[in-house]
Amino acid sequence: MNNLEDIVSLCKRRGFIFPGSDVYGGFAGTWDFGPLGVSLKKKIMDEWWKFWVEDRDDMYGIDAAILMNPRTWVASGHTATFADPLVECKDCHGRFRADKIADGISESVTTEEFQALGVKCPTCGKTNWGPIRKFNMMFETHVGAVLPEDVNGDENAKALAEKSVAYLRPETAQGIFTNYKNVVDTLYPDLPFGLAQQGKAFRNEISPRDFILRDRECSQMEIEYFVRPDDWETQFEKLLKENHEFLEEKMGLPADKIKDYEVPADDRAHYSKRTIDFMFEYPNGEEELMGLAYRTDFDLQNIARESGKSMEYRDKNSGESFVPHVIEPSIGVERLFLAVLSAAYAEEEIDGGKRIVLKLPENLAPYKFCVSPLLKNKPELVEKAREVYNLLRKKYGNVTWDDSGNIGKRYRKQDEIGTPKCVVIDFDTLEDDTVTVRNRDTTEQVRLPIDEL
Amino acid sequence: MNNLEDIVSLCKRRGFIFPGSDVYGGFAGTWDFGPLGVSLKKKIMDEWWKFWVEDRDDMYGIDAAILMNPRTWVASGHTATFADPLVECKDCHGRFRADKIADGISESVTTEEFQALGVKCPTCGKTNWGPIRKFNMMFETHVGAVLPEDVNGDENAKALAEKSVAYLRPETAQGIFTNYKNVVDTLYPDLPFGLAQQGKAFRNEISPRDFILRDRECSQMEIEYFVRPDDWETQFEKLLKENHEFLEEKMGLPADKIKDYEVPADDRAHYSKRTIDFMFEYPNGEEELMGLAYRTDFDLQNIARESGKSMEYRDKNSGESFVPHVIEPSIGVERLFLAVLSAAYAEEEIDGGKRIVLKLPENLAPYKFCVSPLLKNKPELVEKAREVYNLLRKKYGNVTWDDSGNIGKRYRKQDEIGTPKCVVIDFDTLEDDTVTVRNRDTTEQVRLPIDEL
Repeated sequence: MNNLEDIVSLCKRRGFIFPGSDVYGGFAGTWDFGPLGVSLKKKIMDEWWKFWVEDRDDMYGIDAAILMNPRTWVASGHTATFADPLVECKDCHGRFRADKIADGISESVTTEEFQALGVKCPTCGKTNWGPIRKFNMMFETHVGAVLPEDVNGDENAKALAEKSVAYLRPETAQGIFTNYKNVVDTLYPDLPFGLAQQGKAFRNEISPRDFILRDRECSQMEIEYFVRPDDWETQFEKLLKENHEFLEEKMGLPADKIKDYEVPADDRAHYSKRTIDFMFEYPNGEEELMGLAYRTDFDLQNIARESGKSMEYRDKNSGESFVPHVIEPSIGVERLFLAVLSAAYAEEEIDGGKRIVLKLPENLAPYKFCVSPLLKNKPELVEKAREVYNLLRKKYGNVTWDDSGNIGKRYRKQDEIGTPKCVVIDFDTLEDDTVTVRNRDTTEQVRLPIDEL
Repeated sequence: MNNLEDIVSLCKRRGFIFPGSDVYGGFAGTWDFGPLGVSLKKKIMDEWWKFWVEDRDDMYGIDAAILMNPRTWVASGHTATFADPLVECKDCHGRFRADKIADGISESVTTEEFQALGVKCPTCGKTNWGPIRKFNMMFETHVGAVLPEDVNGDENAKALAEKSVAYLRPETAQGIFTNYKNVVDTLYPDLPFGLAQQGKAFRNEISPRDFILRDRECSQMEIEYFVRPDDWETQFEKLLKENHEFLEEKMGLPADKIKDYEVPADDRAHYSKRTIDFMFEYPNGEEELMGLAYRTDFDLQNIARESGKSMEYRDKNSGESFVPHVIEPSIGVERLFLAVLSAAYAEEEIDGGKRIVLKLPENLAPYKFCVSPLLKNKPELVEKAREVYNLLRKKYGNVTWDDSGNIGKRYRKQDEIGTPKCVVIDFDTLEDDTVTVRNRDTTEQVRLPIDEL
């Protein structure tokens, strides 16, 4: 079994993921994708878009702004309840999530309960705790002409500051729900139909951790699938099947590493009649990879109440009007990215040495081929290799070039970035137009004519 | 000449762009992309990525976090100077950009100069102005466990609030510069090489306006191209040519609507030795579409100073070390989107009536084909049309289906969303497998066998 540190290390060493703002010593809970990471992330997101939107008749895209009218979050309940229990050590002023600094503490712990436990401060070891306070995880900002001094300023300025509060969206879902009415009014699609969105969401985690699993800024891919209320069970089963298909066939995740966890009624959101969490076996343990939730008409009814506008859908055949119900498949790009990487990561013994290899599916590998001249100081080999490189790039897109070090080192490097095939041009190539093709997974080498590549 | 209102109206009517948070009465300066808009935007961004990154040997992708270490903005100068002159009416408390509420006022106007002008308040008409203040356009937020009451709270809490200030990035460029060192350390590419990024940037405009031209949240596509200091002029000319090629050949913008504006020394940023603004003839007048700027080593030197880390690049052949210079092509997705739409938009007289048509290039049109049965109540026509629809979708991707209203109405609708070809299945199709193909731009109809589509 591989561990998370090895993957973090590979990600940095090979340019998949760097710590955010690394040059300035980092910035907690943020990560930057480097050249290889961008390539893999983009392929994951494009495959999702193709599978769920482009290859289907019943899905439409949405791309809503990150900054939304704050009434959005009143309606959705985030303003009131999107909060973690925060506790401060009165001695060292360290701040912590109460439910994360000792075992067996629930999110709804009270000050009295917490203080009775005698938990020691992780920083200074004292037990002198302040009250538990609710810390809302939405990032707050001010929109419009509010100067920093206004926030402490005169009455007019202060009123302006209060009126101008906005939040970075904590989920992409509400950017879909708020556009439901405009989509129905302009496109009037048949039920069931889905609205799909890819985009950033932000959560001000008190203690971000576990690499990209619990970061402050992430990309989500969400679908709100609108159905007739009496049709939800059928559509839920269909989406459940299709999500497994996507994860296993398009993302190459092994079926036995994904477990459906049927969330019991007590643990579900109060409006949800069924929720399945897809749990994935990450290197640091089982964690949620994605969720599939039947949300009833909860969100559309909230929006109808807050906006005063009808969210009813009029059936084209029966003429009957009703508020559609919603099933939501929701996945975080970073969680999926890490699942793909950790399913692909392997350490193996070969030729008496160790190799690290990313056995990425071909549709996701940053490069499909690596092309090399056997020796870089032989112009005739380099020229021929360039020819093959250009040919393959025209034919397949992403191809990389490597003439550094010796062939063994190049293979090790391409193994680490998951390139399925290495093509080597040698002196025989100049004679008979054949090349050596080395397979990433088997390390086997075969001789092939160039035009059969 | 078309006007901006017509395009805004088409965008809303056909599901390209809706006002942000529309269901709650909107949210100034934000816009949401609907199904058609997402499709067009994604094609624009994908074409850019293919042209600049995937089809080249010298470009690498970066995808940095929106939330960055605040030292980034000290080093770049944004904390000190990314500000507009703000003025408040003492009577009605309206706040305005001083240089935008009357003609001939510069950004550096002083309070005395402004008050001497006797400008009337656009809201209440009085001339009772407060002092000009510098309003920084970066959105501010707090990262980590800071509660709203902390900002006005006790000393420890206030110190925490100050320490935790962060900004939504006002440009994507710094997300590239801060990753330069990690890319050089991991990939060590030859000079010249470029780092390319697509992503959101945020500017707290005092008065957002002109549809998506001046919004508070936009997507940027930027390249920082690193060159040897003595090579900048050659590379600048090359990038200038390539950017025109991209805009004209891939985005279908008419060459005569794009004018290179050579920014004179006095108007350039102090560190820039050459800047060209690409001006585009928008419906509401000439506006900047993109910029190409030679930034010298200004940014890397700033980062070196602020971080204490060397930004030197060691030449592989000569062994010589130096800080590379940078040329930056920078374009806003929304500005490009609007340029593409307004170049494509036309109102024409046909058959004694008016039609609106989007003459989008084929590579950007949301749908390549629309497939229709002549009559929707003839099952044999519908079935045959579905067959053709599935065939074309398998072959070309984005294809739409339309069986609403009569054929004339369907053509009008497909004209408005820019679908190049409408394919109609009629009774003859059932006999001889030919279909009517109607051309968007010429409105001509031809009869073609299905397998020649």
